[in-house]
Amino acid sequence: MSRLDEFTNYRQRMNDRILEIDNLGIKRFFNLDTAAYKDSALDAKTKELLGLTASMVLRCNDCIDYHIIQCVEAGWKDEELYEAFNVALVVGGSIVIPHLRHAVETLDLCREQAQS
Amino acid sequence: MSRLDEFTNYRQRMNDRILEIDNLGIKRFFNLDTAAYKDSALDAKTKELLGLTASMVLRCNDCIDYHIIQCVEAGWKDEELYEAFNVALVVGGSIVIPHLRHAVETLDLCREQAQS
Amino acid sequence: MSRLDEFTNYRQRMNDRILEIDNLGIKRFFNLDTAAYKDSALDAKTKELLGLTASMVLRCNDCIDYHIIQCVEAGWKDEELYEAFNVALVVGGSIVIPHLRHAVETLDLCREQAQS
Amino acid sequence: MSRLDEFTNYRQRMNDRILEIDNLGIKRFFNLDTAAYKDSALDAKTKELLGLTASMVLRCNDCIDYHIIQCVEAGWKDEELYEAFNVALVVGGSIVIPHLRHAVETLDLCREQAQS
Amino acid sequence: MSRLDEFTNYRQRMNDRILEIDNLGIKRFFNLDTAAYKDSALDAKTKELLGLTASMVLRCNDCIDYHIIQCVEAGWKDEELYEAFNVALVVGGSIVIPHLRHAVETLDLCREQAQS
Amino acid sequence: MSRLDEFTNYRQRMNDRILEIDNLGIKRFFNLDTAAYKDSALDAKTKELLGLTASMVLRCNDCIDYHIIQCVEAGWKDEELYEAFNVALVVGGSIVIPHLRHAVETLDLCREQAQS
Repeated sequence: MSRLDEFTNYRQRMNDRILEIDNLGIKRFFNLDTAAYKDSALDAKTKELLGLTASMVLRCNDCIDYHIIQCVEAGWKDEELYEAFNVALVVGGSIVIPHLRHAVETLDLCREQAQS
Repeated sequence: MSRLDEFTNYRQRMNDRILEIDNLGIKRFFNLDTAAYKDSALDAKTKELLGLTASMVLRCNDCIDYHIIQCVEAGWKDEELYEAFNVALVVGGSIVIPHLRHAVETLDLCREQAQS
Repeated sequence: MSRLDEFTNYRQRMNDRILEIDNLGIKRFFNLDTAAYKDSALDAKTKELLGLTASMVLRCNDCIDYHIIQCVEAGWKDEELYEAFNVALVVGGSIVIPHLRHAVETLDLCREQAQS
Repeated sequence: MSRLDEFTNYRQRMNDRILEIDNLGIKRFFNLDTAAYKDSALDAKTKELLGLTASMVLRCNDCIDYHIIQCVEAGWKDEELYEAFNVALVVGGSIVIPHLRHAVETLDLCREQAQS
Repeated sequence: MSRLDEFTNYRQRMNDRILEIDNLGIKRFFNLDTAAYKDSALDAKTKELLGLTASMVLRCNDCIDYHIIQCVEAGWKDEELYEAFNVALVVGGSIVIPHLRHAVETLDLCREQAQS
Repeated sequence: MSRLDEFTNYRQRMNDRILEIDNLGIKRFFNLDTAAYKDSALDAKTKELLGLTASMVLRCNDCIDYHIIQCVEAGWKDEELYEAFNVALVVGGSIVIPHLRHAVETLDLCREQAQS
């Protein structure tokens, strides 16, 4: 199983477990989180790129993986994503580089998976 | 003098002083920072919105002010900016709220200044 | 006008302005934020102390001020709050010290105001 | 060996190694850290919940694991811990979600281990 | 009164107030903090530069001011400090720039004060 | 293969892949990052210690590993590095402890490797 599949499976399994817990606040937060990336005054495609850039400067690999998958589905091209990576790198500094390596690897994995 | 003018003046004065220092690394970083927001595979308008969202989740008021001014100049409308604020709020949590207050105030000041 | 009154007034004015904006996501986030500190499996008093400690390690003075006011209203005593400050200081390190100074000053202001 | 046992073993082994190094500052910091969670004006049980919430908003899985183990030993119930998780989620935002997944998994592991 | 004097006075006044509180944990932390910058296997001069760089990447103006004053007293020259600023800028990214402006201003104020 | 070799290999492989991407901004950032640690008004040895301390307070294990390898090559002794670890611990707090464990392990691995 690829690293991306492992991540997606674990994420799904634990999100299901969290909903099972049935904490009202947490459930409402999850709904709010989903709603934030829907088409509105800003289109969903642009919002996903915002989510990706925010995840990179905050240095969260799981969040980066999730938003790269969404960005690829939304139709962003590699060269466009590299430019978003660059903005995150300049804003967040060299401490972002390990997450840039992770992001580039994830993007490559997404493209490979799409071809197979 | 408005809060925005004070910020812009101080920023300009200190940036000039920093360039006067003539440290090669710092000067090259400033150039890199400017270049990151130019039209390329991603247009400058989208990049400014990325910069704004990154500034909000990293909770830097000066960076927020700078990018709001740029976003307004780039043509983003209030409703679109509010949606970017919302993404930043959901990603970064309630700790972002004081910076959301600042951002909304700055955006209002920008619009007032444009009208006068 | 005291520093605390200035903060409370500004906070109220900008929160009103934010609700006026009428962005659905932001409004729902504000409701979620309020709900998180209500009595539930954990009592409101304990939750406010969690909010205060989180605000200190994340180094947000406005959030610290807000939660100290709430903690004082909820009935926490100075010695108890100092112990929470200490946990925040140990977890977050000396970078928290400027916010500890702010927190102690705010707490003193709250007590003075209550006496006058 | 379970993930929790692996963590506990590694933590113990490296803490022993760190004490062996015999750096006075580091040793005193470790003592201060231990002392911060002892009964005082605030009881140890409440302090552990503060430590857990601080660890979640600062997004440190090892610290989360450590404090969940302590919170379970101190007698906090699942529903109470979920409410602390919710405060951390609202304060820290969606960037905390991967750590919420980790925290829920760790708590489930603690309960399973207690039953076996 | 200059900005530096105001900072130093406020810092002293609140540190005195914090010691008056007489919380054992907090007092021991303050002692530990002071001890960390004393001559040992590393000299105090080098340690102050470490403290300054850490303060810049963590983006704390009060900490920056404190460590710049110490660095100037320890004998670091402007060109050396600019190189430390550059390391902090590269590690921490453009989000550090507002704090770089603050740091350069503080350093200039220190030099002026020394001449008068 | 040791943990350090795995890290170094992955780092090299992904850095090569990133340069292959040929994004001008990212390439220039990598050059700037390399240049920041060269001898200048501050010697390279001191700068590596700044980079290490910054990496610890920002809590990035990959960055810590990289700078420890560089610090060992630059000639820093264990006792000196422990003092830098202590500064990072005091500045950054107990949230740094998991990264202190990692750093001590990495340093031990570096010394073992040098002996074999």
